Amino acid sequence: MAATRRQLLKSVLATSGAVLMRPKAAVDTQQANAFDYQRNWGRWGADDEKGAVNLITPAKRAAAARLVRSGRAVPLGRVFSPPQHYLRVNSDRGSAVDYYGFEYHGVSITHVDALSHMWDRNGMWNGRDPAKEIDTFGARFGAITAFGDGIVTRGVLLDIPRLRGTPFVVVDRPVTGAELEAAAKAQGVTIEAGDALLVHSGREAFVRAGHTYGSSTEARPGLHVSCSRFIRDRDVALFAWDMHDALPDPDGHRWPVHGVLYSYGVALLDNALLEPLAQACAEERRYEFMFVALPLRIARGTGSPANPIALF
Amino acid sequence: MAATRRQLLKSVLATSGAVLMRPKAAVDTQQANAFDYQRNWGRWGADDEKGAVNLITPAKRAAAARLVRSGRAVPLGRVFSPPQHYLRVNSDRGSAVDYYGFEYHGVSITHVDALSHMWDRNGMWNGRDPAKEIDTFGARFGAITAFGDGIVTRGVLLDIPRLRGTPFVVVDRPVTGAELEAAAKAQGVTIEAGDALLVHSGREAFVRAGHTYGSSTEARPGLHVSCSRFIRDRDVALFAWDMHDALPDPDGHRWPVHGVLYSYGVALLDNALLEPLAQACAEERRYEFMFVALPLRIARGTGSPANPIALF
Amino acid sequence: MAATRRQLLKSVLATSGAVLMRPKAAVDTQQANAFDYQRNWGRWGADDEKGAVNLITPAKRAAAARLVRSGRAVPLGRVFSPPQHYLRVNSDRGSAVDYYGFEYHGVSITHVDALSHMWDRNGMWNGRDPAKEIDTFGARFGAITAFGDGIVTRGVLLDIPRLRGTPFVVVDRPVTGAELEAAAKAQGVTIEAGDALLVHSGREAFVRAGHTYGSSTEARPGLHVSCSRFIRDRDVALFAWDMHDALPDPDGHRWPVHGVLYSYGVALLDNALLEPLAQACAEERRYEFMFVALPLRIARGTGSPANPIALF
Amino acid sequence: MAATRRQLLKSVLATSGAVLMRPKAAVDTQQANAFDYQRNWGRWGADDEKGAVNLITPAKRAAAARLVRSGRAVPLGRVFSPPQHYLRVNSDRGSAVDYYGFEYHGVSITHVDALSHMWDRNGMWNGRDPAKEIDTFGARFGAITAFGDGIVTRGVLLDIPRLRGTPFVVVDRPVTGAELEAAAKAQGVTIEAGDALLVHSGREAFVRAGHTYGSSTEARPGLHVSCSRFIRDRDVALFAWDMHDALPDPDGHRWPVHGVLYSYGVALLDNALLEPLAQACAEERRYEFMFVALPLRIARGTGSPANPIALF
Repeated sequence: MAATRRQLLKSVLATSGAVLMRPKAAVDTQQANAFDYQRNWGRWGADDEKGAVNLITPAKRAAAARLVRSGRAVPLGRVFSPPQHYLRVNSDRGSAVDYYGFEYHGVSITHVDALSHMWDRNGMWNGRDPAKEIDTFGARFGAITAFGDGIVTRGVLLDIPRLRGTPFVVVDRPVTGAELEAAAKAQGVTIEAGDALLVHSGREAFVRAGHTYGSSTEARPGLHVSCSRFIRDRDVALFAWDMHDALPDPDGHRWPVHGVLYSYGVALLDNALLEPLAQACAEERRYEFMFVALPLRIARGTGSPANPIALF
Repeated sequence: MAATRRQLLKSVLATSGAVLMRPKAAVDTQQANAFDYQRNWGRWGADDEKGAVNLITPAKRAAAARLVRSGRAVPLGRVFSPPQHYLRVNSDRGSAVDYYGFEYHGVSITHVDALSHMWDRNGMWNGRDPAKEIDTFGARFGAITAFGDGIVTRGVLLDIPRLRGTPFVVVDRPVTGAELEAAAKAQGVTIEAGDALLVHSGREAFVRAGHTYGSSTEARPGLHVSCSRFIRDRDVALFAWDMHDALPDPDGHRWPVHGVLYSYGVALLDNALLEPLAQACAEERRYEFMFVALPLRIARGTGSPANPIALF
Repeated sequence: MAATRRQLLKSVLATSGAVLMRPKAAVDTQQANAFDYQRNWGRWGADDEKGAVNLITPAKRAAAARLVRSGRAVPLGRVFSPPQHYLRVNSDRGSAVDYYGFEYHGVSITHVDALSHMWDRNGMWNGRDPAKEIDTFGARFGAITAFGDGIVTRGVLLDIPRLRGTPFVVVDRPVTGAELEAAAKAQGVTIEAGDALLVHSGREAFVRAGHTYGSSTEARPGLHVSCSRFIRDRDVALFAWDMHDALPDPDGHRWPVHGVLYSYGVALLDNALLEPLAQACAEERRYEFMFVALPLRIARGTGSPANPIALF
Repeated sequence: MAATRRQLLKSVLATSGAVLMRPKAAVDTQQANAFDYQRNWGRWGADDEKGAVNLITPAKRAAAARLVRSGRAVPLGRVFSPPQHYLRVNSDRGSAVDYYGFEYHGVSITHVDALSHMWDRNGMWNGRDPAKEIDTFGARFGAITAFGDGIVTRGVLLDIPRLRGTPFVVVDRPVTGAELEAAAKAQGVTIEAGDALLVHSGREAFVRAGHTYGSSTEARPGLHVSCSRFIRDRDVALFAWDMHDALPDPDGHRWPVHGVLYSYGVALLDNALLEPLAQACAEERRYEFMFVALPLRIARGTGSPANPIALF
């Protein structure tokens, strides 16, 4: 079955120009190619912790605000129940106080990754050494506070189920960079430098169909490594998705798309709720909007739970 | 000394029309007066959980977006370190994951209060019974999810230190409703229905001067009960402040201003970082801006930590 | 199938003298009978928080110590991983510090229940009102600190799989009071006032066989309500078990055996690891030993995780 | 003032034979001397994780039990309130469930240190490398589960305030190894291999006098490095104390007494409540007793909160 899946993957991806099934040595080269060659390290200075979010200038924000016409608001955060949610009730004073405790990285809670969240053998964002920058007290470099004044920019949604005419992306057919291009064309929208790019893969429909969206140790539908280059080539500032990297990656990449975080300095919005947004875009007949994400300013945090919004 | 303070309070407040120093029985009447007579219960239906946030229509949001010109962004959330901030580092996979645990109500973390957070002997928002609506699993009614599509509206800052010509508000002289009116006039700005009203009392300067901003069991500078009526009369949707209710209240109100939460359905943004905003307003020569707060969608939560933003 | 199970239950239990399958009204009477008629409320004074643990006198402890001959020690706590287990490593100072966070009540972690942990419509231990004694800050009465000087007494193990000649107790055949009597007789041991009574039902073997031991909302093998009377009649001080109450109870008791906690003031040791002890008893050819449980002195706690020990 | 303290220390310690005030280089030699020369690494095999607790044989336990005569029990754990103590109350089912969250290392909660808790530049217990054995998921080696069958042995209390005729040990006069010897002699007791040695320094009286017992970054009264050699020479299995290492150490040792953990494999019981025990010993006219500590079996934990007991 795994063999069958690989065959399917092979044929599917062949059509998108990807070269697969290379021997082990070639995989490494491929990985190097995927994340080395246009790496953004140093682009905004050796000490930069914001990465591609630097592309969001005040003028870019102002232009994003001008996209608001009807004032329709669509939240992109999933409702969640912190695993440790406790209340203290003070009857005398008439108040209730909550305790929230949670790990928000993972495949459930909508959150923004700081640039310190991941690295590979080459290093973390801007070439820093994770052994020096990360300890059990948090991140010294690339913490979520770098995004402390919010990520306010033009947002563009690409709707893959709409493009494919299927309810959701499946394991055997990851989303490719070529499809992102095709979706943009079909929707009549272009991605510009500093944009927030949101890719809808139909996760809510996938779950409604009885599937569980898996962690990084299981096979799961999602995006192919070729999306990383697409993201880099358009100078995207923030990348949002409902599904994650398709796994296992046929070339053995551990993080075929998460790699944009440390290689290109692109902020990630994981587990975004995109089905309502896809519906809103269809109704509004436009796929661009004002995008606002406001991560908590948590000292030394590697990310933050979030409830970003799209404004039409 | 306490007597002196009360004398001062008396003279100060006399000028704002407040009647103070009533005997105990009268206090109860006063409290009833403060929060009973224009109470918003039922105004948006018996089952409403959004309160005055209902005043923020799509058109109101769109108008707020039109206030953005330069694109300057000013974050209103204080940097915070969750008391339980732990990391798991997975060296093999090249990633760090955080655990955050915190109680965010209180006088430190910037957060939005849901309408379920407080009540008095008359009940919680919309007349509900807290004994039925709140249990150790959270709020069944008036949870923070009611604000799930964000609070995006026109924001207006009133800068009390600027009005007074002093660095910060002191214990002996709480901010009154009359002063809010005076500040609006001095700044040439009017408060409109559905606005987010932000009142700067100089907390950061207060702390820099060596003071500790206190919990509700200590004397602390802040706002007088007369501000509550001001908030109600202008139909404010969200009220943000750096300081809290001035305590102890001379009339014995437990929550002289927090009461707007359950009486008028006004969302509160506690512990907002307003000094940088006051400076930005002065530089931009305007005290209105696009205000965006995006509380996390936490099921049954009585509030959410937040990092709202002002956009110019 | 449920019908079959009830039939089986009926025939099994008939032999132990229990009267089953009564109509709903009778169930209430039965419940009253089970926990009302020899209730220990007031036996050690109206303010007593120790219940049957009062039966453990210094002389009883000294006698328990005299049971130690070889010095063989058998731990009764299961190894557990706190759901929130985090480390802080301080490389400069050469130390590691852990954070542990957990809910220990339930069917997994070995723990001692304080007398405040449960109640029924009649009240909690000693007739107190849980609405007055329990709040979101903990228990004001019957907290685990009442057992703060430890539970050191004679321990007696009754081994049901050994009695039955089966590896573990099954759903269709709960352990009855009559069986406890039969096991004691077969093992040549008597239960005395103030003893810790430990009943092995073969939970480890049950789990090895592929079953999951369930929470209180699922059917699960365990002990029948008739064990409660056995426990009361012998004036047991602490009752330890690997399985819990058999559920669902045919008479509709919610806590057919947990009820000894609030009715008789008997301390409970839940999720005890008893298979190694059963083996040790068989090898040592004796079913009595020195029993030591040392709950943490947690202010206002309703119980404590524990790792009790049997000494031979 | 610091100079004065050092002078005092110098004269005090001179009388106990300690050589102080060496130059920096010598300090290193001293440190090496203190913890290198009779280091127990390898003594119980290269893979041993129990250290000196191996000295507690079944026969040693049986002998300890024979010390119990009256059955008087004295708990040695301080009452504590976990910083995260939350309750869930289920009114329908009549039960309350707690959540406990805490860091127990430090100077407050009574706890047993596992051998993995500390290390110096030479390594952790048995010469292992902490970089390999400790990660953010816990300890792979020397975890608290190594003490899983409890620490049951003969206990001996040495009462320093009694020896000195003062209520508590002060900063300027740390407890020395020579004093331990003097106290044992004065009390007519000898320390034997495998014993639990408990040293009372009067911490409760110190706190009652208005002092705060400090963390490792402040000056605090406690024990001098010479106690380490005393502990090693008597082959103590577990060392319990109410105060900790005296800091700052005049020779610059970071952990003048905590070092027995990784150098000699001696289990530590930190923050023991010893005043009631000192009183009981005086009343019972004997300083030996059965000692029982039962650390929780927490997988990969570097220690455990505990409430040990002394039985007379």
